[in-house]
Amino acid sequence: MSGAPLFDKVVVFGVGLIGGSFALALKAAGQAGEIVGFGRTLGSLNQALQLGILDRVGFNVGQEVSSADLVLIATPVGKTAEIMARMAPCLGHQTVVTDGGSTKEDVVAAARMHFGNRIGQFVPAHPIAGAENSGVLAARADLYRDKQVVLTPLPENGPPHVARVRSAWECCGGLVRELTAAEHDRIFAAVSHLPHLLSFALVHELAKRDNRDVLFGFAASGFRDFTRIAASHPEMWRDICLANRTALLDELDRYRAQLDQLRDALQRGDGAALETTFDLARAARREWAERKRQE
Amino acid sequence: MSGAPLFDKVVVFGVGLIGGSFALALKAAGQAGEIVGFGRTLGSLNQALQLGILDRVGFNVGQEVSSADLVLIATPVGKTAEIMARMAPCLGHQTVVTDGGSTKEDVVAAARMHFGNRIGQFVPAHPIAGAENSGVLAARADLYRDKQVVLTPLPENGPPHVARVRSAWECCGGLVRELTAAEHDRIFAAVSHLPHLLSFALVHELAKRDNRDVLFGFAASGFRDFTRIAASHPEMWRDICLANRTALLDELDRYRAQLDQLRDALQRGDGAALETTFDLARAARREWAERKRQE
Repeated sequence: MSGAPLFDKVVVFGVGLIGGSFALALKAAGQAGEIVGFGRTLGSLNQALQLGILDRVGFNVGQEVSSADLVLIATPVGKTAEIMARMAPCLGHQTVVTDGGSTKEDVVAAARMHFGNRIGQFVPAHPIAGAENSGVLAARADLYRDKQVVLTPLPENGPPHVARVRSAWECCGGLVRELTAAEHDRIFAAVSHLPHLLSFALVHELAKRDNRDVLFGFAASGFRDFTRIAASHPEMWRDICLANRTALLDELDRYRAQLDQLRDALQRGDGAALETTFDLARAARREWAERKRQE
Repeated sequence: MSGAPLFDKVVVFGVGLIGGSFALALKAAGQAGEIVGFGRTLGSLNQALQLGILDRVGFNVGQEVSSADLVLIATPVGKTAEIMARMAPCLGHQTVVTDGGSTKEDVVAAARMHFGNRIGQFVPAHPIAGAENSGVLAARADLYRDKQVVLTPLPENGPPHVARVRSAWECCGGLVRELTAAEHDRIFAAVSHLPHLLSFALVHELAKRDNRDVLFGFAASGFRDFTRIAASHPEMWRDICLANRTALLDELDRYRAQLDQLRDALQRGDGAALETTFDLARAARREWAERKRQE
């Protein structure tokens, strides 16, 4: 990569899987001059320095942000509001801010409250690059490669702000899509948040029984795949569920109605109804897998 | 492998994934003299001959079974009763019969009805080697290697019958366990049949919507793993659900109660309850994965 980097100074809040991988990817692409990090613990910040994720640990939020070209907020969602409040008065005119949160309407609401008339500089994002691992040691430069990154631009964003944030995620290897925050949250309630809840529920239901060791002893590859996401981060998923509560409750209720129909079919021994349901599901799942292969 | 094979003549009913892989594995182990196959379609039988799965296609059930040392019933469960009825009067004194069905109480009930006073020669089995693929082309010699195979011996089985069937599955590479049929069906309702039903239900619920393409377009790796088993064989899973209806309904009701608790927690914004549930699930899932790695 030759020429000046796209971003002379990048500030990252949170150096875990999302923030750490973002920093590594921008560096690998040669698009970040200097990367400064803030984090919750000195331990993870030191590890980030040692791993070459950060050039420097930040101490003064206002000072670092005022001269930043690009800021990523990648902290647990519970810390987002506080960080926005601290950086808002100090944002440079050239600074664009993005985030890596898995829900967007709550982030946008917090941003509107804390960024005030600087809200146009914040372009919300959600990189679709989940992993059951988290933390600075899980960060890697290719986490976002060929993964979708959803931007949910605001009416206040100028085209240059959106373009700058888009280019940052594209430098990380991401495939950028745009949705409204509301669309985003409804879609991800269905295809991500609900499956996580269902998977956690199954493992919990079995784990609380006296014969759990026998049950788990016979669990095989179907169980393994179905429950992989039940090893996800509990605090993060608590926050996602609460943040997207309305859409998730709606999806959960639709799912329970579907389950009730299957229960009725099973109860009355209606093999045709079961097979029709399974058939449509298999066809849709296979079509999806085929489309993914071609992407 | 030197010396005479354990089984001079093996007869396989059904040459799909289960039957075909059993035949290939016994051959690879040098433990089958001749393998004769019966099947539903000439096409699959011809493929089985061409792939070296069978030495010969059978035409007369009575004749083939009377001189067989080992018989495997690996047809779709709907055909099991008819095959048992046809072979029962012809079983040789040396013949042991096993099966590959995913449910066991229904198979045992059918066997008691059709084998009559030959029931002692039938040792039910369930190899835990599911795959979303099925059919003769999916068969492979190592399908059962290091996979659990559950035998559910009957009081009428003599120890030599059980030992013969155990050795057959062990020759295929399987790790043989023993349970009663009732224990088996309750355990697999929980760790296999319910997850399949839940996965089918999710994909069906999304696939029937107008915006299915948008939803599936944003589905990522969590969805992929959770729904892998929704690509399973609809007819086979219809039969499994119906055959194990009582235990599956019980598991489904427990799961729905668990889901109702999570829904209530979500509704009232009880983050602590959500996190406690997710936490226990993650710990159990990680412990399970660790145990599997060490096996």
